[in-house]
Amino acid sequence: MKFVRFGESGKEKPGVVDDQGKIRDLSGLVTDITGDALGGKLSESLKHVDISTLPLAPEGARLGPCIAQVGNFIAVGLNYADHATETNAQIPKEPILFNKARSCIVGPYDDVVLPPNSTKSDWEVEIAFVISKRASYVSEDEALDHVGGYFICNDVSEREYQLEREGQWVKGKCCPTFGPIGPWVVTPDEVGNPQDLSLWLEVNGERLQNSTTRNMIFPIRTLVSYISQYMILEPGDIVTTGTPPGVGLGMVPLRFLKRGDTMKLGVEKLGIQEQRVI
Amino acid sequence: MKFVRFGESGKEKPGVVDDQGKIRDLSGLVTDITGDALGGKLSESLKHVDISTLPLAPEGARLGPCIAQVGNFIAVGLNYADHATETNAQIPKEPILFNKARSCIVGPYDDVVLPPNSTKSDWEVEIAFVISKRASYVSEDEALDHVGGYFICNDVSEREYQLEREGQWVKGKCCPTFGPIGPWVVTPDEVGNPQDLSLWLEVNGERLQNSTTRNMIFPIRTLVSYISQYMILEPGDIVTTGTPPGVGLGMVPLRFLKRGDTMKLGVEKLGIQEQRVI
Repeated sequence: MKFVRFGESGKEKPGVVDDQGKIRDLSGLVTDITGDALGGKLSESLKHVDISTLPLAPEGARLGPCIAQVGNFIAVGLNYADHATETNAQIPKEPILFNKARSCIVGPYDDVVLPPNSTKSDWEVEIAFVISKRASYVSEDEALDHVGGYFICNDVSEREYQLEREGQWVKGKCCPTFGPIGPWVVTPDEVGNPQDLSLWLEVNGERLQNSTTRNMIFPIRTLVSYISQYMILEPGDIVTTGTPPGVGLGMVPLRFLKRGDTMKLGVEKLGIQEQRVI
Repeated sequence: MKFVRFGESGKEKPGVVDDQGKIRDLSGLVTDITGDALGGKLSESLKHVDISTLPLAPEGARLGPCIAQVGNFIAVGLNYADHATETNAQIPKEPILFNKARSCIVGPYDDVVLPPNSTKSDWEVEIAFVISKRASYVSEDEALDHVGGYFICNDVSEREYQLEREGQWVKGKCCPTFGPIGPWVVTPDEVGNPQDLSLWLEVNGERLQNSTTRNMIFPIRTLVSYISQYMILEPGDIVTTGTPPGVGLGMVPLRFLKRGDTMKLGVEKLGIQEQRVI
């Protein structure tokens, strides 16, 4: 199933996408779309419901972030070998982890705001997932049991803040609006194999990223297991898994976002996002 | 005022410390001790209350983490010049930021668990603070208006995970139980100047860290303003501000925590923590 959150920012209601692609209002049945809800109650609540009988969301309603009450927003770096190469980085032997801030999360069609005086903001299409069941020291075999759904994340990044200020990457990854997620969170049964999905990103209609999750160095089952060796993953934690080649930092000459640009990005089975850069 | 959370893990109740040092139960008046509550409602609720009339918490009740509903757990690295030197790091020109996971937060007297096969777990006494009012691009002058209280954090760190695995520091900072906070969150009016507090840490009774927040490279007003340039700080976000010299990583020979050790640490006006290492 595809779950969404629709409505004004901060007042989103839970919804589900029906067979016709229309959004049905779930607010009479569930409180919100959260990692916890995806872990059980949500599908149970809907087991005996004919979705086509639920009220339709208002035509043209804004889509909000597809997950509410996000906990830890974890990101994986350099997880496609050819992306590591394009940014002159070593191919990592173990997953590289860093954090985004949950305060950067916005909806899939919301504007992305360049920080004041920013000149090096960059795009990154990624497949992300939400944890629906506490994971601590889990094996790769059981790892995917802890995943409640998949969705697109644009891991927008300010390269000067990330790489030219002191220390760690986090400074370039958390600016307001730098975390569009959605449009939908898609349940694992509907996604099937998460390691066989195409993903792409266009800036102003020009396709700049074009790859498949087959090319990930560390697949999602490995990431869940690996991260759970270093921290407890809790329901509502989200993980974005790294981007394929084609980012501005990898181009000659370098190319970054400017006011008025449009980013459009998609992951197979997970829908499409589109953001205006302002 | 000094606010606490007491009771079984996951079922803590809010409390306040009275003039006699006894804990009074606030659960009849407020829901919990959160960044939001510290931003206003908490002191308002207590304005006309005679605290000595509130029920006493059970004698010997466990103290939980002093803040509930933590959002982003941000940490500052190498913020005392002599600590940077002892770990062979450059003195930073700008604050170094990284993340802990909120899932590592425990109470001030809870056990600290060494991860399986960990041999390089280390201690770090720090002064931490909680955000009580949204902060985005705030100046240093207004920065402290966004702080709802101060407390002790032991930024327990696994140095092999932090430094010898690929990439960023986060892997050594988030293990379960690596974030004792408390015993109290102390309101800014009672703390006065946060840059003039002694802080210390002992392992098995031996004093290994002994410094003052006067020695911080970047004071708290600078940190709030600086971080707010890179991300929105939200009520409930907590920031731990870096440790003075005396950690195991800085010793010759290196010295790390082992099963059975006891850590005892304090910050002037903010109380004392004590953890057994298991």
